[in-house]
Formats: sequence, C-alpha cells, structure tokens
Amino acid sequence: MSRQIAVGIDLGGTNIVTALVADDGEIIAIVSRRTDAARGAECVVGEMADTVNSLISDNSIALEDVVGLGIGTPGPLRLSKGYIHRPANLPGWENVPICQWLQEKTQLPVQLENDANAAAYAEYWVGAGKGSCDLVTLTLGTGIGAGAIIDGEILRGHFENAAEFGHTIVELDGRPCTCGQRGCLEQYASPGNIAKYAIEQIRKGSESSLGPVLKANGAFDSQAIAEAAQAGDSLADTIWDEACRYIALACVNVQHALNPEILVLAGGMSKAGDFLLGRVRQHFISRTWKIFEDKPRIVLSNLGSNAGVVGAAGVAWKAHRSGAACLNAATAE
Amino acid sequence: MSRQIAVGIDLGGTNIVTALVADDGEIIAIVSRRTDAARGAECVVGEMADTVNSLISDNSIALEDVVGLGIGTPGPLRLSKGYIHRPANLPGWENVPICQWLQEKTQLPVQLENDANAAAYAEYWVGAGKGSCDLVTLTLGTGIGAGAIIDGEILRGHFENAAEFGHTIVELDGRPCTCGQRGCLEQYASPGNIAKYAIEQIRKGSESSLGPVLKANGAFDSQAIAEAAQAGDSLADTIWDEACRYIALACVNVQHALNPEILVLAGGMSKAGDFLLGRVRQHFISRTWKIFEDKPRIVLSNLGSNAGVVGAAGVAWKAHRSGAACLNAATAE
Repeated sequence: MSRQIAVGIDLGGTNIVTALVADDGEIIAIVSRRTDAARGAECVVGEMADTVNSLISDNSIALEDVVGLGIGTPGPLRLSKGYIHRPANLPGWENVPICQWLQEKTQLPVQLENDANAAAYAEYWVGAGKGSCDLVTLTLGTGIGAGAIIDGEILRGHFENAAEFGHTIVELDGRPCTCGQRGCLEQYASPGNIAKYAIEQIRKGSESSLGPVLKANGAFDSQAIAEAAQAGDSLADTIWDEACRYIALACVNVQHALNPEILVLAGGMSKAGDFLLGRVRQHFISRTWKIFEDKPRIVLSNLGSNAGVVGAAGVAWKAHRSGAACLNAATAE
Repeated sequence: MSRQIAVGIDLGGTNIVTALVADDGEIIAIVSRRTDAARGAECVVGEMADTVNSLISDNSIALEDVVGLGIGTPGPLRLSKGYIHRPANLPGWENVPICQWLQEKTQLPVQLENDANAAAYAEYWVGAGKGSCDLVTLTLGTGIGAGAIIDGEILRGHFENAAEFGHTIVELDGRPCTCGQRGCLEQYASPGNIAKYAIEQIRKGSESSLGPVLKANGAFDSQAIAEAAQAGDSLADTIWDEACRYIALACVNVQHALNPEILVLAGGMSKAGDFLLGRVRQHFISRTWKIFEDKPRIVLSNLGSNAGVVGAAGVAWKAHRSGAACLNAATAE
C-alpha cells in the first residue's frame, strides 16, 4: 500500500492553508491562498475543494490513500452539525454546512474543528506536548485562542465552546472587549492589544524609542515592543512585563481549572522566545500556590504557524484511527 | 436478591458522616461522628471501618449486597494510589493508605475521591444536575470547593487536582490566601471570608445592624450578613453583593473554561436561596458575553449537606457498574 495521508485545512480570515499530512505529522505538501470571504461561502468552499483535489492529484496520491479531511476554522461553530455558525472574521458566513459541501466535492470524510482546538491537538499529537495526555495551548495571536486536550481528547464542553481562556475575566470591570465583556485576558495580553495600548501611551506623550517608529510607520507590533524592551526601553518593558504577568495569571487559573501537565504558548507573541517564556515562568512561579506540586510545565510551541493545519489533519487521522471517520455533518438536522 | 447498597463516607475535619445509599441515591441509614484527627490516622480509620461494619449489620444487610465503599476527603490526595496526602484540616495525616486500610477492615472494594468532586458527582447523579452530562459545582463553604463532571466523568486532571476554582485568581495582587497565592476567589466570596471581612469593617468603625450582634456574640456568619442585607443594612448589602459579583465572575470563567450545561451553587452560603441565586444570576448576565449562546444554567444544590456522603457512595456505585470496582490502592507502589 502506498503511503496514506490526511488533508488539513486551516481556514482563517486572511489565508486558507491546505496541506497533505502523513500519519507522523510530516507535511507532504502545503499551499496557502488568500481568503476572499466576501465572495460568499459557497464559492470559497468550492475553491477549497478544488485546491484539495489538485493537491492530491498533483502529488500523485490515490484517493483511497487519503484517510480524510480535517478543517479548522474560527468559532463559533456547530461542531456536531458540521456548521460554521457566525465567525467574526468571515462576515456573511452564517450556518454554512461546510462539512457536507466539502464532502460532496472531495468524496472524503470531513471533520470540523475549532481552529484553536486543532492547534492544541497538533501540539499534543506531534508538537511541544507530544507524549502528554493533558495539555492546554494558549495561542497569542490577534486575540488569544486556546484549546485543551484531556486524556487525549479535545475538550469541547456542552455547548462545544470550551477552553475559551482568552475571554476569561482577569480584571473585574476592566477594559471593554470586542466580545462584549469587560476585563478579558486578551485585552491585557494579546499581541494586538498590547501594541494598541503602547501606541495609545506614546500618543498621550509617554517617552519611548518606539515613538519614532510610530511616527515613521504609523504603527508597530508586539515584536517591536519585545525588541525595544530587550534594548532597555522602559515603556516597552513595562507593557511587555504586564502582558507576561496576565499570561502567568491565566496559567495559574488554567492550572487550577484543568490541571494539565503541559501549557503551550503559541502564536505571534511566542516568536519572542525566551523573552516571553522566561518572564511568564517567573511571574507564574511567584503567583501559583506552593501547597501542592501540580504545576504544569510551560513551554513554547514548536510548530509555529503550521499548528492549525497540522492539527486539522490530525483530527482527520484521529477519526480515521478510531473508526469514527464519519462525517460530522451526517448528524445535521 | 435483596436490595443492594453502597457505603459512602464523607471524612471532614469536624465530622465523619457514613451512609448506606441505594442505587437511586436514597439514603437508607446515616450516622455522623466527631472527627478526632489528633488520635492518629490508623485509630480513626479503624473506627471508621467499625462504623461501616455496624451500620451494615444493624440494618440487616448482607455483605454480598454491599457493592462497595466510596470515601470523599479534602485534598490534596493521591487518588491513583488511594492515599490521603496531606490535608490541611487533618493535621499529622500524611500519605495515609486509607483505601488499603479500609478494604482490609471491611472487605469491601474502596474508592477514594476528593470531597468536592464527590459532591459534584452527587449533583450529577441524583441532584440539581440530574440528566446533564456536563456540570460544575461551586461549594461555598468555609473555603470554596469545586468539582467538574465532563461527559459523565469526574474531571481530575494530570495531577489529580483539577477544578480548584476556589483558588483561581480574581484579583491580581489581591488579598493573601491561606494557599500562598494572592487574590483567590475564596478570599472574596467564601462565607468564612466575607464574615471575616464584615467583622473587620465593623471593628474599623463602619455602621451596621451587625455591630450589636458582633458585640453580643463576638462573631457572626454569612447567613447573618444575608439576613441583615435583606433587612436593608447597607454595609451587609455591599459585602453580600460584592461576594455575588465575584461568584458571577467565577461563573463566567467556568463557562469559558469548561462550558458546562449546569453550574450548581452549594454549601453554607446557598442556604440564602434566591438572595444568592438572584444576585449571582444578575451579575452573571451583565458580565458574560452575548456573542454566543453558551450560558450555563445556574442553580442551587438540592442535596444540602448530604451531597458529600451521597456522592462518595455514588462513586462506589459507578465503579461497581463499570466493573471497575477494583481498589484504587491496588495500583499503589
């Protein structure tokens, strides 16, 4: 028998990444295209299926060697129905039966998963959490996505929306969040929000080496804050450290909620490497309890931006192995 | 065959409650004795076994009709070893192989469980969460215990210490907690701590109808605060409302962490009934997000102080039904 593969799709608001992934997580082929959500779900999903079919034939893979297709997308989803519900970054996409459509156009069993859950599954399967059965991933991207693996299974919860740690409240009556709550973690610790906050502070007159950068470029990102902080900029250091403090607080709360063995930090902010990890660990150790030795190991993701697409394929592999490779959409009303 | 029963034991720092419980959760017989922890673990466990054996014979139950024994105790435990590790309220009890000792003295298969988990299991099995597979219990007692049921299973986590929501941090750098952290939920919302805080405020000169009560009795409890608040006392109302606000914040965070269907409020503070539930629900609704309909139903426990002992028996029933009635201690090193 030739080598089997699963197809993974990471459907984001900006790009759609599609990959052929072997049973050890190796990426055999990968392609990224712009998401043109405004053209409508049916059109975009049709192109996604075309991409899948081309990728399979271009790589001379027989359809019977493809075990399935997994797709990770931002929530909220109706996982058990195989629907994309109403994602903020895919405007106009409402109750899209993506599993059914993709199955019809690719003849593959299709698994739908929340993108942050897919990323967590990738870390568990072949990433920084390999070998552990209990881990939580915090993806520090534009917002803060999170996923949890418990006993090797993705935690979904009754409403299929568990592990939304980015929207746990860390400040009662704190900064307003786009979700409608106040004081959400992602307002204090996501790369997008700390950059926004730093820019506000500079506009209000705070001195910083980032001032001229802002003047020249009109903006900067969290990586610029990390670099300025490491070069000794006081404002940047204060803002970076505050973000690390809130991430550490979230780690304490994840420890007490799910008691995982491993806590993986991923997403854009994790590119700062030890400057993120060291600070978070330091604040975590000083803030967590000492009465019981149940501290998770906090580590950086080693899958980078491919975690989502690898995890989506992993979910398809999982369904195949458990013999549960049935289409999620098959249970749709 | 005669009616089968399981034995439940709720081992607390003050009392040891032992009950015979039918497979529908009905309590056939129950007895409570003072805990005299200072006499040493071996002596106390011996008396516990004597109580179990007497209760069985006094109720004319044949040993073959007893499916097993479940015991709930405060953590930290070594569940998979069947050990009591080092509980704060049983001083001197360290690494007590309670499962093995109880099995030797009762000839029953023994299941050890964290007491807050046992209470959650009781609510799931025969209490306010009956019919649901995903629930979380917050037991508002001296501290705040919590337990979570996911897909009908008790959430334990890698270090067997999950769902410790009482020690999730709700105020960065907040009030010091006995666990060594700062800003734990139980410092802001447990009955013991809000009474302590109210007493402090009155001693500092705050006016309150509770002032004379304090003078007369030297103390009061959270129930007195609830009553004073309902009678229009301004200080009591402020303190009660703050506690309800923090409990609501915890409910939002539990919602996003575990996404349960039901959230049960239990323990001494729940005796205030609607005056607790109404306030918590009101703060919860105003604080949780509106972008996705995944709000848990927040309800009061209907098992009262028997939740622990019923849940302990439930854990024994569960082990019996799944054919996994083996002694936890059997896997001890």
